[in-house]
Amino acid sequence: MNTITDLSSLRDALRVFCKERDWHRYHTPKNLVMALSVEASELVEHFQWATPDESQSLLPEKRAEVADEIADVLIYLTELADVLGIDPIVAARAKIAKNAIKYPPPHNPPFPKA
Amino acid sequence: MNTITDLSSLRDALRVFCKERDWHRYHTPKNLVMALSVEASELVEHFQWATPDESQSLLPEKRAEVADEIADVLIYLTELADVLGIDPIVAARAKIAKNAIKYPPPHNPPFPKA
Amino acid sequence: MNTITDLSSLRDALRVFCKERDWHRYHTPKNLVMALSVEASELVEHFQWATPDESQSLLPEKRAEVADEIADVLIYLTELADVLGIDPIVAARAKIAKNAIKYPPPHNPPFPKA
Amino acid sequence: MNTITDLSSLRDALRVFCKERDWHRYHTPKNLVMALSVEASELVEHFQWATPDESQSLLPEKRAEVADEIADVLIYLTELADVLGIDPIVAARAKIAKNAIKYPPPHNPPFPKA
Repeated sequence: MNTITDLSSLRDALRVFCKERDWHRYHTPKNLVMALSVEASELVEHFQWATPDESQSLLPEKRAEVADEIADVLIYLTELADVLGIDPIVAARAKIAKNAIKYPPPHNPPFPKA
Repeated sequence: MNTITDLSSLRDALRVFCKERDWHRYHTPKNLVMALSVEASELVEHFQWATPDESQSLLPEKRAEVADEIADVLIYLTELADVLGIDPIVAARAKIAKNAIKYPPPHNPPFPKA
Repeated sequence: MNTITDLSSLRDALRVFCKERDWHRYHTPKNLVMALSVEASELVEHFQWATPDESQSLLPEKRAEVADEIADVLIYLTELADVLGIDPIVAARAKIAKNAIKYPPPHNPPFPKA
Repeated sequence: MNTITDLSSLRDALRVFCKERDWHRYHTPKNLVMALSVEASELVEHFQWATPDESQSLLPEKRAEVADEIADVLIYLTELADVLGIDPIVAARAKIAKNAIKYPPPHNPPFPKA
């Protein structure tokens, strides 16, 4: 497996990884969005009882667990984008351009507050 | 804003974008994981009533909406990793190395099936 | 449709509602958990940028929207439990008994904090 | 603690349970929606790799785990509704009345398919 240095090499490494384990047959978009949302919620779990302040100063062990969950979200997102033939960087670039029009600066709050 | 070509330039572009709108004050890790999970669920919503087969052949309009949601997940993930000082590519590389040990090939199914 | 006064009459009303629309064919447990998690995230969306304090004092319009999302979660939860033949009240009673042993009072915080 | 037989007695039992553990101070709406969505995702996790057919025939051990997660969702939903002063049954009744107008029978599919 080549070194993972960006989203393209991550995608390539994941293709190899899944091929070796015959996991592609589970990787329908439907299943991958489920897995992605589960990993996103595992991130939420780390912060659900924390105050906003506490959420900003993680202990080293917790921080390592959070890094693992960030990795899981990125992995499933990369696999989902791959099976759909979508380039996530191109999609993000287009979305930011749209947001720049939708929310001209200065603009706050981002959404109607509670 | 410089061109977005990878996760580092995406992170830099988002820093500028949020600074111009004074959005950083909302971007505690707690709030960002919530926003991330909401966007992940908007992806799920596109596939909730689809059969696995249908989920693999999206109509162009739906595909564009899905690309937008993939972008949103990547954007919030990048912002979350940034406020926590975590490099998502380094985290993904470490996670894949761990998974390679946890699931030696051939290995399936990935998890106990229902 | 009879009056909905508790979870049993809610379940019965939903059976009739779905039968009239031929929706049961979409109601596999897999699809229903997806729909449930999407509705839970729509609840999260209402609170993602709010401070904990703000989350406790909703404006009337927002409060009505939140009530609608609570309803959606309860509806899909009831439908999921129904297709699985699980009684949610019996399940909750058993879970609280388990939690009473797992977390003998006084016990806090509920989970390791960030 | 009185016997739990419906949503009102469940709510009352949870009030006592949380008071004994001093957990109410964690139970802002913001925190409770996070906990609710995490439990909803734990339900999703049980079904993420299953085919729709497999999701309908759970083994007894898996079924018990799913019942536990259904309980957790119902518990957090009840606590959330309680702190917001919302009656979930009243909300569900109102939502079904709205849906009956929005989706007159026969009406399918429930949403535009993928």
